[in-house]
Amino acid sequence: MAGNSFGQVFRITTFGESHGGAVGVVLDGVTPGVPITVEEIQQQLDRRKPGQSSITTPRAEPDKVSILSGIFEDHTTGTPMLMILYNRDFEPTAYLDIKDLFRPGHADFSYTQKYGFRDWRGSGRASGRETAGRVAAGAVARKLLEARGVSITAYTKRAGGIECRDYDPSVIEKNPLRACDAAAAEKMMEVISKVKEEDDSMGGIVECRISGVKAGLGEPVFDKLDAELSHAMLSIGAVKGIEFGAGFAAADMRGSQHNDAMNENGFVTNNAGGIIGGISTGEEILFRIVVKPTSSIARPQKTVDMAGSPKEIRTIGRHDACICPRIVPVVEAMAGLVLEDHYRRQAAMMLDS
Amino acid sequence: MAGNSFGQVFRITTFGESHGGAVGVVLDGVTPGVPITVEEIQQQLDRRKPGQSSITTPRAEPDKVSILSGIFEDHTTGTPMLMILYNRDFEPTAYLDIKDLFRPGHADFSYTQKYGFRDWRGSGRASGRETAGRVAAGAVARKLLEARGVSITAYTKRAGGIECRDYDPSVIEKNPLRACDAAAAEKMMEVISKVKEEDDSMGGIVECRISGVKAGLGEPVFDKLDAELSHAMLSIGAVKGIEFGAGFAAADMRGSQHNDAMNENGFVTNNAGGIIGGISTGEEILFRIVVKPTSSIARPQKTVDMAGSPKEIRTIGRHDACICPRIVPVVEAMAGLVLEDHYRRQAAMMLDS
Amino acid sequence: MAGNSFGQVFRITTFGESHGGAVGVVLDGVTPGVPITVEEIQQQLDRRKPGQSSITTPRAEPDKVSILSGIFEDHTTGTPMLMILYNRDFEPTAYLDIKDLFRPGHADFSYTQKYGFRDWRGSGRASGRETAGRVAAGAVARKLLEARGVSITAYTKRAGGIECRDYDPSVIEKNPLRACDAAAAEKMMEVISKVKEEDDSMGGIVECRISGVKAGLGEPVFDKLDAELSHAMLSIGAVKGIEFGAGFAAADMRGSQHNDAMNENGFVTNNAGGIIGGISTGEEILFRIVVKPTSSIARPQKTVDMAGSPKEIRTIGRHDACICPRIVPVVEAMAGLVLEDHYRRQAAMMLDS
Amino acid sequence: MAGNSFGQVFRITTFGESHGGAVGVVLDGVTPGVPITVEEIQQQLDRRKPGQSSITTPRAEPDKVSILSGIFEDHTTGTPMLMILYNRDFEPTAYLDIKDLFRPGHADFSYTQKYGFRDWRGSGRASGRETAGRVAAGAVARKLLEARGVSITAYTKRAGGIECRDYDPSVIEKNPLRACDAAAAEKMMEVISKVKEEDDSMGGIVECRISGVKAGLGEPVFDKLDAELSHAMLSIGAVKGIEFGAGFAAADMRGSQHNDAMNENGFVTNNAGGIIGGISTGEEILFRIVVKPTSSIARPQKTVDMAGSPKEIRTIGRHDACICPRIVPVVEAMAGLVLEDHYRRQAAMMLDS
Repeated sequence: MAGNSFGQVFRITTFGESHGGAVGVVLDGVTPGVPITVEEIQQQLDRRKPGQSSITTPRAEPDKVSILSGIFEDHTTGTPMLMILYNRDFEPTAYLDIKDLFRPGHADFSYTQKYGFRDWRGSGRASGRETAGRVAAGAVARKLLEARGVSITAYTKRAGGIECRDYDPSVIEKNPLRACDAAAAEKMMEVISKVKEEDDSMGGIVECRISGVKAGLGEPVFDKLDAELSHAMLSIGAVKGIEFGAGFAAADMRGSQHNDAMNENGFVTNNAGGIIGGISTGEEILFRIVVKPTSSIARPQKTVDMAGSPKEIRTIGRHDACICPRIVPVVEAMAGLVLEDHYRRQAAMMLDS
Repeated sequence: MAGNSFGQVFRITTFGESHGGAVGVVLDGVTPGVPITVEEIQQQLDRRKPGQSSITTPRAEPDKVSILSGIFEDHTTGTPMLMILYNRDFEPTAYLDIKDLFRPGHADFSYTQKYGFRDWRGSGRASGRETAGRVAAGAVARKLLEARGVSITAYTKRAGGIECRDYDPSVIEKNPLRACDAAAAEKMMEVISKVKEEDDSMGGIVECRISGVKAGLGEPVFDKLDAELSHAMLSIGAVKGIEFGAGFAAADMRGSQHNDAMNENGFVTNNAGGIIGGISTGEEILFRIVVKPTSSIARPQKTVDMAGSPKEIRTIGRHDACICPRIVPVVEAMAGLVLEDHYRRQAAMMLDS
Repeated sequence: MAGNSFGQVFRITTFGESHGGAVGVVLDGVTPGVPITVEEIQQQLDRRKPGQSSITTPRAEPDKVSILSGIFEDHTTGTPMLMILYNRDFEPTAYLDIKDLFRPGHADFSYTQKYGFRDWRGSGRASGRETAGRVAAGAVARKLLEARGVSITAYTKRAGGIECRDYDPSVIEKNPLRACDAAAAEKMMEVISKVKEEDDSMGGIVECRISGVKAGLGEPVFDKLDAELSHAMLSIGAVKGIEFGAGFAAADMRGSQHNDAMNENGFVTNNAGGIIGGISTGEEILFRIVVKPTSSIARPQKTVDMAGSPKEIRTIGRHDACICPRIVPVVEAMAGLVLEDHYRRQAAMMLDS
Repeated sequence: MAGNSFGQVFRITTFGESHGGAVGVVLDGVTPGVPITVEEIQQQLDRRKPGQSSITTPRAEPDKVSILSGIFEDHTTGTPMLMILYNRDFEPTAYLDIKDLFRPGHADFSYTQKYGFRDWRGSGRASGRETAGRVAAGAVARKLLEARGVSITAYTKRAGGIECRDYDPSVIEKNPLRACDAAAAEKMMEVISKVKEEDDSMGGIVECRISGVKAGLGEPVFDKLDAELSHAMLSIGAVKGIEFGAGFAAADMRGSQHNDAMNENGFVTNNAGGIIGGISTGEEILFRIVVKPTSSIARPQKTVDMAGSPKEIRTIGRHDACICPRIVPVVEAMAGLVLEDHYRRQAAMMLDS
C-alpha cells in the first residue's frame, strides 16, 4: 500500500535512500532449490552501476551486493532473500547548498508537499539508486525465466535525436549508449557529449523485446500483461510513456491494417506487440518507453526555495547526460519481475485438482 | 490475483460475460453516509452504452443498473455496493458461424490458449461490455472527487487522422466523437463514416485532463500516480500506449527544455504532465492514450480455425467504427478510481496519532 | 482492505445486507473447465438455510441461488462467478420498535460507533445471512478439494452443556443439532428446547476434521495454515475462540507429552492437530471453535437507546436457540476456502521453470 | 503471498534464518515525521532476547538492531524502515548430529515435505528468532499507539500448572516468568526449574489486555479485529489456540448470561472481550492464547530419520524450559501491529472528501 512493493507472488519490497545506510530489496516467493550465485546477481548490478562511461555519473559506488538470507549451500531456500548494497560514496554535504531549493524536474517539490519535510540528501528515496534493488531481484527472475526459454533484451532505440536503423543485439553491450546499432551509437555519443559540455542533458527511447513467451500468459481485465508492464515501466523514475507494437501509430491506422492476420504458420504481422486482450499471443513482446532528459543539469535554472522565493539553481554534481544506457538493465529487470510473477499466477490459477 | 479486481482501498471487482446473465461490479471501500442516487450512476452508464450514434454499435441494451446492496435511504452504508446490469439483447446464435474461427485483433486466440477452451459467445469476458461495471463504480468515485474539487475530463483528441486544434470542453458531449474541437469533430465524422462504408474501422487518441489535485498526491516507487494511471488505462481493451505531459516528444528534448521551472506563482510550464516522481505537482494532470482501430470489421480477413487451417472471416455484426467516443467515459471512470484510491491511501499513510 | 474479501488466489468478496436487495458472493480465481451445477451449490446452501428444525429461526427464505457469470455449458470458465440470493422474506418494519435500541450481544453499538449511523434493518451487514455467500463459494472449493481426496467434516461437539462421547459421522446430518453422537444429540435437544421455552439461548462447541491433506501444505511465518484457519473461523459472527489438536490442554502438558513422536508408520499421536510450524503434517487436521449463545433472546434485557438512556429490550422475532447446527456448514465452507487457496499458493510458489 | 508479510497499510516483511547472515524486518507504511530512536526499539528487543533467566536459552546473541533506512535526523521519513540484527552466536555445527533426524514437535518434518530439502541449521526460517523482526516493528507501532492513548499489556497467566490469581501489572517485568501475580510466579519458577532438571519443558497461557481503544475500530466480515488478532497470534510458533473474553466458557453459557448489558455508564460486563461483530466496543480488549511446551527437550524421544527409519533423539542445546515469558513481547508486538494497521485502514475508509 505504501508503494514500496511490487508483484503478487514473486514479490519485491525495496528499501533505502540515496544517502542513507544502504539500499536493497527483500525478494519473496522464490522457488526453493534453484542454484544461484552472488556473482550472477552482481553481474546485472554492474550493468546499472555508475561510472561506466564518460556520459554517466562518476559516483564511486562499487555497488557490491550481499545476500543475507534465503540462500543455503548456493541454492535458494524458498524463504525471503535479503539483498543489500551498503552506501559508501555518500556526501550529503554536497547537497547542503541546495537543501532549501527545489531542483527543476526533480521530485523535491512534490515529495516535500506529500511528506511535509525535505530529505535533502541527494534525492532520498526518489533517487535512481533505489533501482539497484530491482536489478538484484530481476537477476533472480531472469535466471528462472531463462530455464523456461524466455529471453529479455532492452536497448537504447533513440537518443540525442538519433534513431537506430539496424537491430544488432551483439553490439548493445559494446557501446556506452547500449544502442542496438553501432553506427547510430557513435552519432548518439557525439551529440550527447556535446550536450554534456553545454551543461545540459538529453532524453531518448528504450525498446524492449521479449522472446520465448508462449501464447496464453497474462491475466484478464485489470491484470493484463501490457497493463502490468506499463505499471512496471512507468514506476521507473524518468519514464514518461510506453507503447506496444505499432503503438501511437495505431491512431491513424485502419482495422484492416492493424489487425494481425493469421495463417497456418501463426501470425502474419505483430502490430499488437505480442499481447492481445492482455494475454500473450506467442509473438515477440515488443514495447518502447520514452525517457525524459536527466533533470540534474549544471546549467542555471529558475526555481524557488522552500519559502517560495524565486532563486537560480545549478545542479553541479555527478550526473548522467543521458540516462538511457543505465535504464536498460532496469527495464529488463522489471520486465523479468512482471513475467516471472505472471508465470506464478498462471500456475496458481490453472491448478488442476 | 485472478485479474478481476482493481484498487487497494477503494476497490472494484467486475464480473460478467458479454452474453451471460449479467455484467456488473462490486465496489468496496466506500465511505458511509454519502448521498448517491441510481440516476447519477445511470447518467455515466448512458455515456458508455451502445447505440448513441451512427458510428457506434446498435446493440439494443438499455444498460439499466440496479444497486442491490450498500445503499440505505439514498446514502451509502460503507458496505459493498453491488451494481448489476442484466444482459438482454444477447444473441449468442449470431456467433455460431464463427465459433471455430479466431477473429483477427480479438482476444479469441490468446484466451483460448490460456483457458484451454473457447467461450465463443461474443467476446465473453474480453468484451468491452465488461467496462460497464467500471463506469458504474467510477460514477461513485467522481461524486467523491467532485466534493474535493477534482474534475476529470477526457475527450477524443485525434481520430480518422484528424487532430483537434482547439480545446473547447463545451462541445465534447455535443458531437458523436466526443472531440474537443467542433470543426475537427465534423471532419472526423466524415472520414469515419466513409471508413465504415468501406467495412473498416479507425483508431485515435484520447486525452485526459484532471484539475483540482493539489501537490502531494501519489505514492513513491512502485505505486506512482502515473504508473497506476498507466496500469488502469492499459487495462482498457483497445488501448496500446500512454504518455504524460510532453510524452514521447521528450525523447528529443534537452533537460533545460523539459524541466519545468518554478517562480513565485508556481510552475512556469507543465512538461511533466502534473506528476513528478510519481507524486502530483499541483499542475493539471495530463495524459494521452492511443486507441487501436476496432478489431471487428465486416471486410474479409485472413485467419485460422481452431484446428489451425487457414480461413477467411468477416465479422458481421454490431460494431463501432471508432471506439474513441465510448472509451472516453471509461477513461474518466478509471482515472477517477485511481485518484479516489490514492486519496484513501494517503489518508491511511499520513494518519497522525 | 474494507473487510469484505477473503483469500489470495481463490478469493471471495461477499456483499449484501440482511434486509437489502440480495446477498451473495463474487468468487474469483476458479480453475476453468471444472464441471459444476447450481444444484451442487444449492445443496450446501440448504444446510445453512433457516427453518430446518424447531430450534432454528423460521424466517421463510428459500435461499435459492442464481449463478449469473463464470459458467458456460455447465463448466466453470475461469472468470468470476457471481452467485446471488435475492432477499424475499424481509420485513424491516418488524425492527421499527427497536430501531433506536442497541441489542445486547449484537454489533448494533460497535457498528453505529464505526459507521456513524444505524442500519436498523435486521443486523444489516453484520447479519448471519451474509454467510450464505461464503457457503456458496465454499461449495465450489469442496468440489475441487474432493478431487484431491480432501474431505472436511464439521459437527456440533458440545451444546447445552452436553458433550458428544462418540464420533459417528453417519448421524451428523440426521439430528437437528448436527452432533456427532446420536444419544448426546437427543439430550442436547431436550436442554435447548427447554432453554428456548425460557426465552433464552445457548452456546456450544463445533469441531472440524479435515482428512486427505498430505504433509507440506501451508505457508511459513504469517500465513501458517492454522493462523489462516483461525482468521477464517473468527470471522464467523458468533465464534469467540479456536484451538488446534490438544488445544488449551497443552498449557499443562510437558514437552515429552505434547510432542508427537514418529515411527516407521508416521506420527504416533496428533497433539498438534495436523499442523506444525504452520505446515500440514499429513495427520488429520483437527480444531474446535467455541460458539457463543445466540444474542437475540425474547427475555427482557437491559440496554440503552441511541441517546444513551437506559431501556429494556426484548428481541422478539425469528431466532436460533442454538446456532451451532447452522454454523457447521459455514465452518466447512471457510475451511474449504482456506485449503483451496493454500493449494493454489503452493502451486504458485513451487513452480518449476 | 509467500507468507512473510503481515498487515495491509502498516506492513511488515520479515526475513532471515536462525543460522544465516541476519534476521530482521522491513516496515512499510510508517507516518513521516515521527520521532523515534534506536534505543526505543532496542528496549523491546531486549525483552525478547535469549539469556534473560535460568529457564531461558543462554544463546549469546546481543540482538543489537541497526536501522539502515527510513530514518533521518531521528525522525521517520515515511519510507521503508530496514531494521536488521546480524547473527553472531551461530554454530550450525551443533546441529550436525541431528541433521538427518526430525525433531518431534518441530517443523522439521512438515518443512522438509513442503520445500523438498532440509535447512538443518537450527530451525532455519521456522526458528523463534524470526520474531525479533516483529518485535522491532512492533516497537514502532507501540510508539504510535501510545500517542493515541492505547496501551497493550501481555503477561503469563498460567504456567507449570499454576494460575495467577491476582492481576498486578507492576510485577510483570520483575519476575522471570512475566507473570501478573508475584506469588504465582514463584511457584511457577519452582515447578519449571524442576521440569527443566528432568530434561523436559512446560506450556502455559499468556493473556493480553488492550486499553484505550475507543468503540468503532475494526472492519466487518473477514477483517474483524478478533479474526486478525487470531491470525496474528496463531502465526507465533508455539501458539495452539486463542479465546476472547469469556472464551471457551461461553459454550455452556446462556444468552442472558453472555450478552453484555448496557446502562448509562456503558457496558455492565465484558464477556465479549471488547469486540462485537469484529468491531471494538470501547471496553478492554481481552484475549488469552495457549502456548505449547517447548519442543526441544534433552530427554530421549522417538523419531525417524530422513529415510523413515526409527531413531532416538535428544535435542541437547540451548532451549527455553517454558517459552511464555519470551512470547509476551511478541504477543504485544503483534497486537500492536494489528491495531496500528486497523487505525490506518479506518482512516482510509472513513475519509471525508
